[in-house]
Amino acid sequence: MNLIILTEADSRGEFSYHLTDGRAEHIRVILRSQPGDSVEVGLLDGPQGTAIIEKVTDNEVVLRCGQLAQVPDPSPIVDLICALPRPQTLKKVLLTSATMAVRRIHLIRANRVEKSYFHSPLLQPENYTPFLIEGLSQGKHTRLPEVTIHDRFKPFFLDKLPELQREEKNTLCLSDPSAESCFSDVYDRKTTSVGVAIGPEGGWVPFEIDLMKDHGFQPFSLGRWVLRVETAVAGVLSQLEMVRMMG
Amino acid sequence: MNLIILTEADSRGEFSYHLTDGRAEHIRVILRSQPGDSVEVGLLDGPQGTAIIEKVTDNEVVLRCGQLAQVPDPSPIVDLICALPRPQTLKKVLLTSATMAVRRIHLIRANRVEKSYFHSPLLQPENYTPFLIEGLSQGKHTRLPEVTIHDRFKPFFLDKLPELQREEKNTLCLSDPSAESCFSDVYDRKTTSVGVAIGPEGGWVPFEIDLMKDHGFQPFSLGRWVLRVETAVAGVLSQLEMVRMMG
Repeated sequence: MNLIILTEADSRGEFSYHLTDGRAEHIRVILRSQPGDSVEVGLLDGPQGTAIIEKVTDNEVVLRCGQLAQVPDPSPIVDLICALPRPQTLKKVLLTSATMAVRRIHLIRANRVEKSYFHSPLLQPENYTPFLIEGLSQGKHTRLPEVTIHDRFKPFFLDKLPELQREEKNTLCLSDPSAESCFSDVYDRKTTSVGVAIGPEGGWVPFEIDLMKDHGFQPFSLGRWVLRVETAVAGVLSQLEMVRMMG
Repeated sequence: MNLIILTEADSRGEFSYHLTDGRAEHIRVILRSQPGDSVEVGLLDGPQGTAIIEKVTDNEVVLRCGQLAQVPDPSPIVDLICALPRPQTLKKVLLTSATMAVRRIHLIRANRVEKSYFHSPLLQPENYTPFLIEGLSQGKHTRLPEVTIHDRFKPFFLDKLPELQREEKNTLCLSDPSAESCFSDVYDRKTTSVGVAIGPEGGWVPFEIDLMKDHGFQPFSLGRWVLRVETAVAGVLSQLEMVRMMG
């Protein structure tokens, strides 16, 4: 936990937060903090900064937030469009996406997605949100990604995505191992948002690639190796970080 | 399994391979192959190509290898120098490194590495090799990375690494969140091998960064977010793939 994420539910009056779960244990056992010590905290979807520890007992840690400051939104905005993976993979995708400040995670149907995945209990917000919060805590920021589930492929690209992005000038791209371009070839530095589509384990089918291309998605290759979905997500977000730093 | 990896132990005379483990199950249950069908195979540390399925029973699959061809070694050569992580993380690091064709994985001591990790049963070759083979099978190649364990930090950088790389012109770099350069800034395209050092969960201590710098390692940042070790490994190897494709 590089940042302790605080929520409304932890609040006990102005600036005071009471923790009783894994975060309290982290402060007590890993950080071995004592009253008077400070820890880095962030309010979920809000400002971040330092809190002072007021009390540490076996079952509770009480924090008082000091100066918290709003951190500017990261640029570019990143939306991940991911063929719904198996639940164990989805947990890693959610965590990594939150760590690396994805704004929206669209989980979509694709030909090679098993239908049963859409019935996973993990798709309930109360079940997936902890993985997102763990990701924020790892990445040291507070912006909770928005997760949406789309159980039809074509309407997502025809209607929903254009509606969501209608005020944005964006780069749209799709990971396709047969592409000759790399991410920096397809990424336009002048855009303010990026939509990246990552296929299922078995890859996209040709119809899907064609439809995405028709809607402005440019194919790119992540490299020479066939990656697991969670590795592909970490890979493309890292490639974006590098392109950003290259200026 | 994008590639079925075959070993000496599976061989039953010329070109014939008998499988009874998870690979047989994969062929039977996932691929639903029948006699006469072909599958993609590779000999561990050897050529790869196509095999014909000769027999499928409940407990065995018999393959006959056809034309197998040696695939050229990937360039540049990549050596990963990784502060020994906790066993659950190490499994993912091994798998991703094998998938992305790392040549050597050096697992080293660092100040923030827990000493108990060096006693993990996972550090025995018979225990870690399955994760490497799973990685090859995912990445679709046969080059088994060499894993070495170094329980002292300084002698590794002073003696062992220079000895291993004495005939190579290489780029050496270390991941450091405070660095201003990105990977493409420090990577020299004219080198034939790259050594990348990834720190422990808590990061390198200043002494370690200074010592690595003194031995030719250039610091670079993976991006704005604090990544888990396994995500950092996937991230830098993906950044390298992109730099390679950029030419």
